[in-house]
Amino acid sequence: MSLSHLLDMPGVNTPEAATRGYVFNHTMIRVKDLARSLDFYTRMLGFTPVHRQDFPDAAFTIVYLVLVADRAIIPEDDAARLQWVLGQPGVLELTHNHGTEHDESFRYHHGNAEPRGFGHLCVSVPDVEEACARFEAMGVTFQKRLTDGRMKHIAFIRDPDDYWIEILQPASIIA
Amino acid sequence: MSLSHLLDMPGVNTPEAATRGYVFNHTMIRVKDLARSLDFYTRMLGFTPVHRQDFPDAAFTIVYLVLVADRAIIPEDDAARLQWVLGQPGVLELTHNHGTEHDESFRYHHGNAEPRGFGHLCVSVPDVEEACARFEAMGVTFQKRLTDGRMKHIAFIRDPDDYWIEILQPASIIA
Repeated sequence: MSLSHLLDMPGVNTPEAATRGYVFNHTMIRVKDLARSLDFYTRMLGFTPVHRQDFPDAAFTIVYLVLVADRAIIPEDDAARLQWVLGQPGVLELTHNHGTEHDESFRYHHGNAEPRGFGHLCVSVPDVEEACARFEAMGVTFQKRLTDGRMKHIAFIRDPDDYWIEILQPASIIA
Repeated sequence: MSLSHLLDMPGVNTPEAATRGYVFNHTMIRVKDLARSLDFYTRMLGFTPVHRQDFPDAAFTIVYLVLVADRAIIPEDDAARLQWVLGQPGVLELTHNHGTEHDESFRYHHGNAEPRGFGHLCVSVPDVEEACARFEAMGVTFQKRLTDGRMKHIAFIRDPDDYWIEILQPASIIA
């Protein structure tokens, strides 16, 4: 659909001047086991944690992670780094409620079974075949392999809480 | 917490070279009424729809939206625009299952009541007081006003499906 048709869809408005400088900064998901999720997001997908805040009274911790090509762009100074990350798009916030990792029956809801709502995160990659072969070799759980179903150009993997993560390669969608 | 302490947290790995070029591209949420959600995200928050795909057999539609300071950076050509958006961080994908908008009792699950999982999206703004006053004037539903609770520097508004959207100003967190 052309851009002008997209902008003519029912409901679509021209952005007001007041929204200038707004940034879609982050998406927050709750995780059962923080160390396990940090391992998954840093090792499998290349994220870097850039901020952590503990709330001992309310017994939870939050960690912000970014996916950057070069860690050198991350400010060293703590206050500067926090201000930087809150102005970036594409930040992932993990919330860990303390103790859930010790409760064997505890599980979060991934949103793709009833009651549905949130669907997935998506990481785009330079080479989707190569990325999926690497995930396979590293033992990542697949929700949908490239070869499953009709859409052969996208895959879905699952994080440690079974949240779905779409994997796609921008160019392959077009081809 | 210093960056070196963050990188020493249990579970954290140094990104592998294989993850170079990975981008945290988008977050997908299901919406009951596409036109109503498009109105909310474009009018209240300044998003622009850049891609729409209809799946008539499976009776659903997806729309990708971006929050950019200047629409001139969005490619005009359809294929170029799709390739561009799939390489951007901070994209919002709305999925609309056709017909839900006509079912008065239909509701999606926002994730902050049981069963919990996904928590919220966050839009950072240059001036959180000004942004919240504008939302108030436009009749946006608040989950938490700046004046509610202990955290006076953040607010939460609700989108038409009651998904929570955190509103914050990077500088005010530091001060």
